Amino acid sequence: MNPTIETILRHRSIRKYENRPLTEEQIRLIVQSAQAASTSSYIQAYSIIGICDPEKKKRLAELSGNQSYVETNGHFFIFCADLYRHQVLADMEGQDISMSLESTEKFMVALIDASLAAQNAAIAAESMGLGICYIGGLRNQLEEVKALLHIPERVIPLFGLTVGYPLQEGSVKPRLPLAHIYHEDSYHSDTEQLQLQLAEYNEVIRQYYEERTNGERRDTWTGQMAHMLARPTRMYMKEFVERSG
Amino acid sequence: MNPTIETILRHRSIRKYENRPLTEEQIRLIVQSAQAASTSSYIQAYSIIGICDPEKKKRLAELSGNQSYVETNGHFFIFCADLYRHQVLADMEGQDISMSLESTEKFMVALIDASLAAQNAAIAAESMGLGICYIGGLRNQLEEVKALLHIPERVIPLFGLTVGYPLQEGSVKPRLPLAHIYHEDSYHSDTEQLQLQLAEYNEVIRQYYEERTNGERRDTWTGQMAHMLARPTRMYMKEFVERSG
Repeated sequence: MNPTIETILRHRSIRKYENRPLTEEQIRLIVQSAQAASTSSYIQAYSIIGICDPEKKKRLAELSGNQSYVETNGHFFIFCADLYRHQVLADMEGQDISMSLESTEKFMVALIDASLAAQNAAIAAESMGLGICYIGGLRNQLEEVKALLHIPERVIPLFGLTVGYPLQEGSVKPRLPLAHIYHEDSYHSDTEQLQLQLAEYNEVIRQYYEERTNGERRDTWTGQMAHMLARPTRMYMKEFVERSG
Repeated sequence: MNPTIETILRHRSIRKYENRPLTEEQIRLIVQSAQAASTSSYIQAYSIIGICDPEKKKRLAELSGNQSYVETNGHFFIFCADLYRHQVLADMEGQDISMSLESTEKFMVALIDASLAAQNAAIAAESMGLGICYIGGLRNQLEEVKALLHIPERVIPLFGLTVGYPLQEGSVKPRLPLAHIYHEDSYHSDTEQLQLQLAEYNEVIRQYYEERTNGERRDTWTGQMAHMLARPTRMYMKEFVERSG
């Protein structure tokens, strides 16, 4: 196994960091790595906002559900789906492209582009010995985030990425069985088989939590998921996305 | 610079491969790497379909716009946004979660999850000396792809990923200026500044194409993009996504 795959497989989220900023060189390497990711038809439909201002970090931590590690870390990146520059270039080129920009297809393209870039950034940071955590909580109150960071139309902040020097070990969380995620030649949708795999996985998860909490937590994965999904969150998103073009 | 960042920065798409299948061990490492990516609230909302059957590969190549490298490669992976298993687990747990599953927020979560996983797979493959290419053309005719691979409701194929032993060098395509993609503390939406950066970038791209085509191709990036975006594609996507739940 090579060092890159070792880095990838060792991933765990880090939620406690030294209050020690990354160097400009580290930030540059992380952003360059993000940019090196594949991009659909060369469209490069994303932007990254790095937050240095402590006041803004504090406010973003509040907006993301009071997660202290959004405030205290080495650097906080925000990844955005971005078709604003395409609006600018269409004006330069005298073309009307609004129909494309407002399509579900281009929304998907921008989301995928931004996510591929973000994962490159995450792996690059981890390869330097830094810890990372994605912040989906950034989507809790996107209007406020947009106003705080002066984000224009056609740009949607998707998630944050905290990066920094780890102050905790973290632990690698067991994933669904490979046979459950990975299908060959056809999707295997046999419900009985899937339920068996999920029951097996539940045992793995139950043990994982028991060991880490001295038997106090006895969650299963299906229980956790059903509980979470029974409470729809961020239901304003459809309208928000449509309004952002 | 460490070997992982070197791998990341060396990325270029490979569109010609030996007709030599990956080993099971290589496929397993690639899928495990995909699974190691971060996942929103542990939701693991994606699946991967690997295509071995030559007939299916051939058909998928046709459906993706007759790209021969979809047919001839080491392995062809398809990444799907997947909330089908969550439907299955909700039934196990006796919960109604349809409102969550149909929300724009969960659609975004599944897209992001699948993309983070895919980029881990891509980097893992490249770190083994293999070449990769994302296949967005897979979205040209998704109904046909779904039928061919028996993909159930609540699962949306997003893109393909060809992996294999490269038969070409490929070349690293220059990205937008870092200052254009990366903002600090606020989004810099000043149109004049953006246009200047784009004009500079156009020069880089013009030179890139000129050098590679002995002066025959003289594209700019903004020209390419305006041309592409003036012709909306895959406009069936909104309806398709809504119908897939």
